[in-house]
Parts: sequence; C-alpha cells; structure tokens
Amino acid sequence: MAQRAAESIQVIEACLGQINENKLKDCLKDLHPADIAEALSRVPLAQRIRVMRAAGPERAALVLYELDRDMISPLLEALGPKRLADVLNAMSDDDAADILGELPENQKDQLLSLMEASEAQDVRELLKYGEDTAGGIMTTEYVSLKEEVTAAEALEYLRQVGSEVETVYHIYLINEQAQLTGVISLRELIMAPPEARMEQVMNRRVIYANVWDDQEKVAKMVAKYDFISIPVVNDRDQLLGIVTVDDVLDVLEEEATEDILKLANLDAEDQDLVETGAWQRAFRRLPWLIALLFGGLIAGNVIKGFSGTLEQVTALAFFITAMAGGPGNAATQSLTLVVRGLATGEVDQRKLLKAILKEAQVGLIIGLVAGSVLALVAFLWQGSPLLGLVVGLALTVNITISTMLGSFFPVVMNRLGFDPAVASGPFIATFMDVTSMFIYFSLATLLLL
Amino acid sequence: MAQRAAESIQVIEACLGQINENKLKDCLKDLHPADIAEALSRVPLAQRIRVMRAAGPERAALVLYELDRDMISPLLEALGPKRLADVLNAMSDDDAADILGELPENQKDQLLSLMEASEAQDVRELLKYGEDTAGGIMTTEYVSLKEEVTAAEALEYLRQVGSEVETVYHIYLINEQAQLTGVISLRELIMAPPEARMEQVMNRRVIYANVWDDQEKVAKMVAKYDFISIPVVNDRDQLLGIVTVDDVLDVLEEEATEDILKLANLDAEDQDLVETGAWQRAFRRLPWLIALLFGGLIAGNVIKGFSGTLEQVTALAFFITAMAGGPGNAATQSLTLVVRGLATGEVDQRKLLKAILKEAQVGLIIGLVAGSVLALVAFLWQGSPLLGLVVGLALTVNITISTMLGSFFPVVMNRLGFDPAVASGPFIATFMDVTSMFIYFSLATLLLL
Repeated sequence: MAQRAAESIQVIEACLGQINENKLKDCLKDLHPADIAEALSRVPLAQRIRVMRAAGPERAALVLYELDRDMISPLLEALGPKRLADVLNAMSDDDAADILGELPENQKDQLLSLMEASEAQDVRELLKYGEDTAGGIMTTEYVSLKEEVTAAEALEYLRQVGSEVETVYHIYLINEQAQLTGVISLRELIMAPPEARMEQVMNRRVIYANVWDDQEKVAKMVAKYDFISIPVVNDRDQLLGIVTVDDVLDVLEEEATEDILKLANLDAEDQDLVETGAWQRAFRRLPWLIALLFGGLIAGNVIKGFSGTLEQVTALAFFITAMAGGPGNAATQSLTLVVRGLATGEVDQRKLLKAILKEAQVGLIIGLVAGSVLALVAFLWQGSPLLGLVVGLALTVNITISTMLGSFFPVVMNRLGFDPAVASGPFIATFMDVTSMFIYFSLATLLLL
Repeated sequence: MAQRAAESIQVIEACLGQINENKLKDCLKDLHPADIAEALSRVPLAQRIRVMRAAGPERAALVLYELDRDMISPLLEALGPKRLADVLNAMSDDDAADILGELPENQKDQLLSLMEASEAQDVRELLKYGEDTAGGIMTTEYVSLKEEVTAAEALEYLRQVGSEVETVYHIYLINEQAQLTGVISLRELIMAPPEARMEQVMNRRVIYANVWDDQEKVAKMVAKYDFISIPVVNDRDQLLGIVTVDDVLDVLEEEATEDILKLANLDAEDQDLVETGAWQRAFRRLPWLIALLFGGLIAGNVIKGFSGTLEQVTALAFFITAMAGGPGNAATQSLTLVVRGLATGEVDQRKLLKAILKEAQVGLIIGLVAGSVLALVAFLWQGSPLLGLVVGLALTVNITISTMLGSFFPVVMNRLGFDPAVASGPFIATFMDVTSMFIYFSLATLLLL
C-alpha cells in the first residue's frame, strides 16, 4: 500500500525497538533514507550508531548524507575510520566530497587514504573546487558515451551501469577529445531506432555550465530550462560532471536564506543557531548594529542643532519615534520588493524604470495618507493645528523620499556591481534617520517659532 | 557544438531578422523555448506575434508558457481565439490550466469550448483545484499501468506514449480501482528482466501527496526525498496526477519570495511592481505602516509622560533615535533568523529551546557591547558620566529584551498556529518602541533628577 511520510516515521520508530541487528536491518530495508534520517534526529546517539551499523554501507551512506551536519561528527567518531571509509565508498562522490570538505584536514586525509583508490581520487578531484561553484556541487557519476555508439548499445550499457550512476535520464555524448558534443534523454533513446547511432539522434545544442560557474547561476539555468541535470565542462569544453536537480533545490533554498538574512544585515554563517558560540555570533552581528547606532547618533546631533526649537516646543519630542520609524518602514518595504525582484528576475531591464517610477508614485500616496493621519492625530492630541501641519508635512516628505530611495538605491548598487541586499539597508536607514530629523525640525523652526 | 545560454539569445535575435516565415521557423527550430521567451521579452509585440505564428502550435505552446505573465494577454488577443486554442491543445494540461486560470471568465470559457474536447476536459478538471494546492500544480500527463503488465510491455507502451506525457522517468502502477499501488523508475524498468510483471519489480512503498495538500508541503516532500516527480491521489487513494520537479522549483521560489516579503510586512500580491496601479499598491501597504505609526505615537505618549524630565535634560532627546533604532535592528536580526529557521526546518523541535537560550546570551552580549559604546559616546559628547550611564544602561536592557523577544515571539506565534513571519515584526517593533522609551526615561528620571 502507498503511504504518507508521517506513517514512515512511525514505522521507523517501531523498527528501532528491534534488538537483533539483522531484524533491524530487515525492518529498515524498504524505508526512504530521508525518513530514517528524520527519525534518527529524534533518538539518542547510541540508537543512531546501531542503525548505521545495521544498515550496511550502501544504506548507511544514503542516510548519513540526509542527516543534519551537526549530527555527523559524533557519528563519525563512534563508527570509527574503517567503517566510515566503507560508507564513504558507497556514497555518491559529490556527497562524499561535501561531508569530507567539512572535516578537519587530518581526519579528511586519513579517511581518503582508507577509501578505495578510485573513489578517493574522484572525491579529491571534487574537493579542488570551491563549494559554491558548479564543480563543488557536481557529481562525476553520470553516463557519457562516444557519438558512434548505437541506441541498442547505449541501452545495454545503461543496464550495466545503471545502479552505479546518479542519474541515467540524460546520456551525454563526447568526441575523441572528451569534449561534450551532444545529449540524448533516456526518453528519446528508448524511442530511437535500435540501430541508430548517437550522432544521428542526439541533440547538438547542449546547454552547459562551466566548472567554475557560481552555483546560483547553475541553479538558475536548471530552473529556467526545466532540466533534471546539466552537464559541467572545463575551459576546453571537456565534460567533467553533471549537476542534478536535487542539488539545485538545495542551492536555491540556501540562496533564498542568504537573501533573507542579508536584508536583516546578517550573513549566511549567522544561520546556524545552535552550534556556534554566543560570543562569536554576537561579534558577527555587532558591526552593523554599531554602525546603525552611530546613524541614530548623527540624527541625534541634528536634533541637538535644533535644541532651541525643542526647548520652546517640548511636544516636538513626542513625535520623534513615529517620525524616525515611519520612513524607515516604508523604505524597507520598497527596498525588499526591489531587491527580491532583482534576485528573481521579476524586475528586469525592461521593467526597471517603470518599477522605480511606480514606486515613486506609491511613495507619494503613502506619504500623503500617513502624513494626513499623523497631522490629524497631532492636532487632536496636542490641540495645535500648526503642530499638526508640521508633523504631517514632515512625515509626507520623509516617507516619499524614503520610498523612492528604497526603490532607487538598490538598483544603483546593483549597477555598480555591489550586492543590493547588503549595502542598501543600513545606508538608507542612516540617511533617512538624519534626513527625517533635519526636515522635521527645520519645518518646526520655520512654522512654529 | 555545445553552447552557453548567452549565445542562444544572440542566435535568436539574429533569427528575428528573417523575413520569410518558414525561414524564421527553421531558424528557431533547435532553440530552447526558455531562450526564445527571453529574447521575445526584448522585442516589440509585433515581433512576438510573428514568432508565435511562425513557430507552429507545439513550439508556440512551450514558448508561451515561459513568457512573463504580463506579456501573455496582449499576445492572446493578437493571435485570436482559434489559433490560441490550438496552442493550448499542444500545451501540457497543467500549464494550460495555469494560463486559463488567470483569464477573465468569458475568455476562458470561449477558449475551452474551442479546444479539443478531451484536452478541455482535463484542463477543466485541473481548474477545480486551488492554484496553491497539489491539484493546482499537478499534470495529468503521466504514465500509469496495471500491475500485471510485463517490463517488455511497459517499455513498448512508453515508446508509444513517450512524446505525449510530461515525464516517463517514473511509471505509476494502479489496481482495478485505479488506486495507486506502486512505482517503478525507468532506470529500474530497463534493468528488470523483460518478462517480469510490474507487481514483481515495483516499489510498494510509494510516497504520495493528496490532491488538496498545500503546494509548499508537496514541494518540501519532493525536495526532501530528491524526487523527479511525486504522485497525487484523491481521498480514496486513486491516482489523479503527478507533480514534477520543475514545478516544484517554481513553487519554492514563490514561497521564498513570500517569506521575504512577509518579513517586510508585505504580501505576495505586492510583488508585482509594474502592472498594479499605484493607488491600489499604496493602499495595500498602508495598514501596517499606519499601525506601526501608532506604535511610534504610543512611544511618544510615554515620552510625554516624562515631559518634566525632558524639559530639565534636553540632551535626552538627542538619544531618542539611537535608543529607538538599536533594539529594533537587534530584534529584526533575531526574528529573521528564527523565522527562516522555522521555514526551512533548520530550527526543529530538538533545537528550539537551545536556539532560544543561545539567542538570549547573544542578546545580552550585544546589549552590553552596544550599551558600553553608547555610554562612552554619550559621556564624551555631552560630558556627563551620569548621562552616559543612563543611555548605556537603557540600551543594554532594551537590546537584550528585544533580542530575546525576537527569538521567542515567533516560536510562540508558530505554536499558536499563526504565521510567525506576519504577526511578529509589527508587534515586536511597537512593543519595543514603547518599552525602550519607558525604560530610557525611567532610568533618566531615577538617576539624573
């Protein structure tokens, strides 16, 4: 019977009750590694070790890769280097490289020396590439054939190697110089006449990535073309590996997280909420917070310049928090929309100017409405129509400016080659703190004194 | 020769120079629809219409689906309903349903009546489901077979239907009641003995989604299990369709965008920066802005309560912007980390308490450091050690509270069944505005007067 994911977890938890190692292995046999990993995250280390031992290297490899990174280290130590090398042998080379890449140098070298020579060689190759590049996420376990092979021969070959490669759904064709020349899908292959040679039926327009390409670029290509895998070549067009769509899903989630954190002035490393020490995390966040604090102090210095006005009309101080917050929130909205639009490609060249002009209109409307509301509240609260006019007018102008800046500034940053998400927020916040106070107190001095 | 995406775009732009319709069709033949769509976004409407006409229904269908939604409507009108119905016939049923779902009711009905009866029927079925459900993103163009079929018969069947379905890489097995009972991958199929019956070689533990499941849940299942497609069943376990990984990539991007916008108090509809009118967009954003404005005013009322203190020590006003901004920024960081952690599953039950306790420590450290910096600056600037003590102590307390609140509050919201991203930000901002001012002026009254 078919079953839902939640049921799988229950089955696994029942399996963990099996005392006999063989029975435990049998019990886990048909379950999905991702479910086993999920269940393992809820049990003590001793149970995890039992399961990894009972599962055998092939299954253990699949489960190990699905585990949270912080659970792997203690498991590795408990299993011991020999058994671990067996597990790594059974793992696909890109996954093994991922796990080894996070271990200390000496532990990594020890494990590589215990692994099968050819596996270790593949993994060493992959470890050369930065983890954020196409090379860092590709696998070398793909199917490539010479162009002269027939469809029948290709199918026969797939039957032999099918269980050793990561995907058989696209077969890449190469020439004598190992250069990528074509691709054929398994769907096309089974529909091709058995005697047809690959060069007769393959697609010659292959879209590919370079091994040094950024992983985000590769992920976007796979998403754009609806690929299951994309071939990766070196600078001489030689096929080195493929990136599969399951890794692309991980990359896109990682990149989305990065974008979200950047908008809150955080970096990707801040994401780990448990393992890193509190001091280290605090000091990673402090620079921006202190910078923004100084922005607030510069705004305070502007207020100081208007001490005379403030001393005469103390009520002006009651509106400082609203006057500082409103434009900041409006700018954040506008900034977030444009930064995300640039990241997804929703806002492209064609729409950019239109989007900015529209945002300016939106800013003016929001400013007028919010300003009017504040003017009315100020008038009713403080009983002074002139004070109402001052705070209303100041908020209108400040929100309009901040909304425009929020949409315009990230575009400029982007054009200049900076990451719009990182540079824009703190700059706009500080600029608007200072500008808001200046406009507010200037208008007050002009109209109230 | 293999080629990069950028080159494809250039080739297409050159093709558009072809005056003869057949030559244009020939020129576009081998190009990827996604690249054609990208090139079309840069040319005038007249050119787009030419390409769609020249391409023929099959190719036009693929290109049409890749186009930005705002380009489709004018194209539809220019092509006319008859030609358009042909294009929709050639489109996969889930894509056709997506496009028809966005058209006005009468236009939709007209097109459905012009389409082939069986295609129109499939599309009508899909239109029943909400666009955010498994049913809304599934396709009915999949391969299903009876359990008694042999591997050889299955392969022969795939050769016949291969070009009509969206993916042949997983074959789903059903019983007499059309209930899903198993799955076999094409990889397993070609490796199975030709005479083996499906029920002998299929996997019986199929992980599936319900047709009414939220699309985000389905996307997460596909990502978790590294699937290329997932079967979708109704409440009686009958197979209705499949969701393919290319649609899952779109869903994950959509959901990431939604999460990012929510943190800036925006909703998904705000994302469209060009088509919606400025007034409509302004009024969608105003409610939160006004609410936050009132938060600032309540904080202002707290300041009013301390008018006496403020009149005696005007310098207190110079620190209001920094005192309001600092805790807000610290809370945003903490909140963003926890909200994203909850969304990706990085922060699960097992780690939740640990994460919150760690954040509390981080908050204390950040508060102490930022408070000390502000104390020193205040002392040097205003020459009063006591004023330095007041602002430093207040900032320390306020940042510590706001960081704790930023990590704790979204977790509580989540437990209570609210979306932590929507409810937390404005509440914490308002609460901290008020609390910060209260603590700041209370300390000032206590220590300075």
